[in-house]
Amino acid sequence: MYYNMGMIYLDHAAATPVDKRVLEAMKPYFTERFFNPSAAYLPAKEVSSDYEAAKNTIAHAIGVKGSDLIITAGATEANNLAFTSLSNKFSDEARRCSSFSERSLAPVVTGLGRSGIAPSAIMLLEREHPSCHRILYLITEHDSVRHVAERYGGEAIKVLPNGIIDLDDLKKKITDETELISVSLANNELGTVQPLAEVASIIREIKIERMKRGIKKQLLLHSDASQALNLLDINVARLGVDLLTLNAGKIYGPKGVGALYVSHDVKLKPLTLGGGQENGLRSGTENVPGVIGFAKAMELAKKHLNGNRKKYVNWRKILLTELQGYELINHKHVLDNFMVLCYNGIDAERLVFLLEEKGVYVATGAACAASKGVRSHVLEAIGLSDEQIAGSLRITLGETNDEDQIHEAVKIINEIVKNEYQRIKALSR
Amino acid sequence: MYYNMGMIYLDHAAATPVDKRVLEAMKPYFTERFFNPSAAYLPAKEVSSDYEAAKNTIAHAIGVKGSDLIITAGATEANNLAFTSLSNKFSDEARRCSSFSERSLAPVVTGLGRSGIAPSAIMLLEREHPSCHRILYLITEHDSVRHVAERYGGEAIKVLPNGIIDLDDLKKKITDETELISVSLANNELGTVQPLAEVASIIREIKIERMKRGIKKQLLLHSDASQALNLLDINVARLGVDLLTLNAGKIYGPKGVGALYVSHDVKLKPLTLGGGQENGLRSGTENVPGVIGFAKAMELAKKHLNGNRKKYVNWRKILLTELQGYELINHKHVLDNFMVLCYNGIDAERLVFLLEEKGVYVATGAACAASKGVRSHVLEAIGLSDEQIAGSLRITLGETNDEDQIHEAVKIINEIVKNEYQRIKALSR
Repeated sequence: MYYNMGMIYLDHAAATPVDKRVLEAMKPYFTERFFNPSAAYLPAKEVSSDYEAAKNTIAHAIGVKGSDLIITAGATEANNLAFTSLSNKFSDEARRCSSFSERSLAPVVTGLGRSGIAPSAIMLLEREHPSCHRILYLITEHDSVRHVAERYGGEAIKVLPNGIIDLDDLKKKITDETELISVSLANNELGTVQPLAEVASIIREIKIERMKRGIKKQLLLHSDASQALNLLDINVARLGVDLLTLNAGKIYGPKGVGALYVSHDVKLKPLTLGGGQENGLRSGTENVPGVIGFAKAMELAKKHLNGNRKKYVNWRKILLTELQGYELINHKHVLDNFMVLCYNGIDAERLVFLLEEKGVYVATGAACAASKGVRSHVLEAIGLSDEQIAGSLRITLGETNDEDQIHEAVKIINEIVKNEYQRIKALSR
Repeated sequence: MYYNMGMIYLDHAAATPVDKRVLEAMKPYFTERFFNPSAAYLPAKEVSSDYEAAKNTIAHAIGVKGSDLIITAGATEANNLAFTSLSNKFSDEARRCSSFSERSLAPVVTGLGRSGIAPSAIMLLEREHPSCHRILYLITEHDSVRHVAERYGGEAIKVLPNGIIDLDDLKKKITDETELISVSLANNELGTVQPLAEVASIIREIKIERMKRGIKKQLLLHSDASQALNLLDINVARLGVDLLTLNAGKIYGPKGVGALYVSHDVKLKPLTLGGGQENGLRSGTENVPGVIGFAKAMELAKKHLNGNRKKYVNWRKILLTELQGYELINHKHVLDNFMVLCYNGIDAERLVFLLEEKGVYVATGAACAASKGVRSHVLEAIGLSDEQIAGSLRITLGETNDEDQIHEAVKIINEIVKNEYQRIKALSR
């Protein structure tokens, strides 16, 4: 256990505590080593080189160089930044297929509490006529990919009932206009690991075929790897991606720090302008402690990857064997710490509440979706019925757990589920 | 002294260490209270309410409510976000005065190291014909305002030789097209405090006059207050601003956290899309420890404002009295901890280096400009000669200092300056 939290926390996909060793690594950069990396004197230059070294550590963990990374305030910003790789829309070519009208500029983001929010001018201006999709994205993507892709008029790629990308649907939907394909490495609600290398291989074939026909349009592969950084051995070359989103907050690093890996031949545009940090692509004084912490978290994740995976596989087996009355939603190609269990006929939100009273913390879906009371678009996409969605619990294991907790969780969950089934049975009499 | 750093740090405008009390306040939110504020269980909801309480603390310090703030990753993002308040350009009206051409989309950000950087599509698409300025900005603004304003085709307002806004120039440049005026509360290189209330009063008059003529176009006042948060008693109503940029990293809070105050009647557009946090205007899992730290830093800044100001005024007096051979560049309406001293004929960059060897840390200009070897646009704007700019040192006092250090600094600076003048004299013989 990292911290004695007096609870059994089984929601590591939503958030992880900062590892003590990570916090220790960060501390000096809040205090004695607080200097602005852009300042001219030596201690500031040392901070600057520590920052670059930390970027290198993060980069090396995925098989690239520090200069290939753009540090961001998290995965959401990195995902948004990835979409700036689209070629300039106002080229003659794009102009032909774009139908600009007042109506296409109508606000899309609505009902988010604050009155009068209009969607980004940026996004709106980039929006295209639906008949010329430049973006394809997996239908189960996180909102930070999905909403941007939709805003640009992107088209969704289907998933099979097991949550894996439908490669036939992908092939069918790639046209000569397609520039960017976004497929997460592992889904945040199901833990489903996508066959990125296969996607990359399809893309390679199409690029060769395009080249033969003299079509020069780019065709990039972006992947959000936020959920998988400490559960898979990630190597950019092996994955075959051009853009990869990383996040510290899900791997026992600090919240508010992420990065985008950018291949050398990809041109991005900054989302914000200013002092020109991160090679002009992401201005603002560097979050030095955050990046130092991110690097330490990556280092630890890499070091303990195999040990942790074995541990989770074992705990998962205990849970799946000893828990009762559930249907397993995510069978295959799933991160080792992930389980989505469906208790048919039971309201999972009620289960979350009852389990919480016994000190067990689980989720119904992604935290973002849960807080808005929106039905999970992911569970819908894999073809679950309304009743199945309503009865689905997400359990994600992690470093705050130990084996005793797993046995204890089994006991508590089984008892509560049993009581619930009895209660429902009694009600229906 | 906050930390025994074994040095005399006189560059508090570039960066400040995190106050020990701030770090203590942050710690639990890295560890035990790490939950995702969007999760459904009680401990997560408690974190969410701590986060909202922290936003309220920050907001109250400037006389507004927490719901009026959008938390960002720093001042740069907040400044960029402020510019999304521009009305949608593709209204009929804007269309009339916009001349869209391929040439106006040519990259503007160049020479920043990484090859092939193109400016944000966003910004480019928003760029207008120079003859219809919708933005006015003070010529001495920080790059994160200046570069965005320039990208939108904004026009610069002049400053007087004392660094204060030329109100006559402002009045002359406001046209019926003007929508947004950006004037920082205090300049980051000179510390010059701008008469924002006077600017606001001019704007009010113009709005009344516009109303009489039936012109409904918005006219907003944005101000970057990053540099002044712990040195002035800031109240949004008194300043008369519609948008105000705040930053934790300059007031002994953590780097990578900032906020934008947004008046109720101002409509912003998100720079990034995703989970819909911050009322849909700034998606991404909340940086809880960062915001908790920001709130603590604001609380301390407010509490010690008068005491610290008195202390700095006293130390400033000692320095200005006892230092020799300089010309004071910023005389009046300057933050209490700021001094820009010009040593005519001496290379200030050399001084920074020589002082560093004796443990005294000062700056030549803004850290960002310094690291790029670019001549300060601020010192140029107030009419300094090339020689004066080359000889200018920025000294900014702060909480790492004590009176002994000030006396020690006087001794060291005077000695080094004396030696330099002698060396130059010897060379010129």
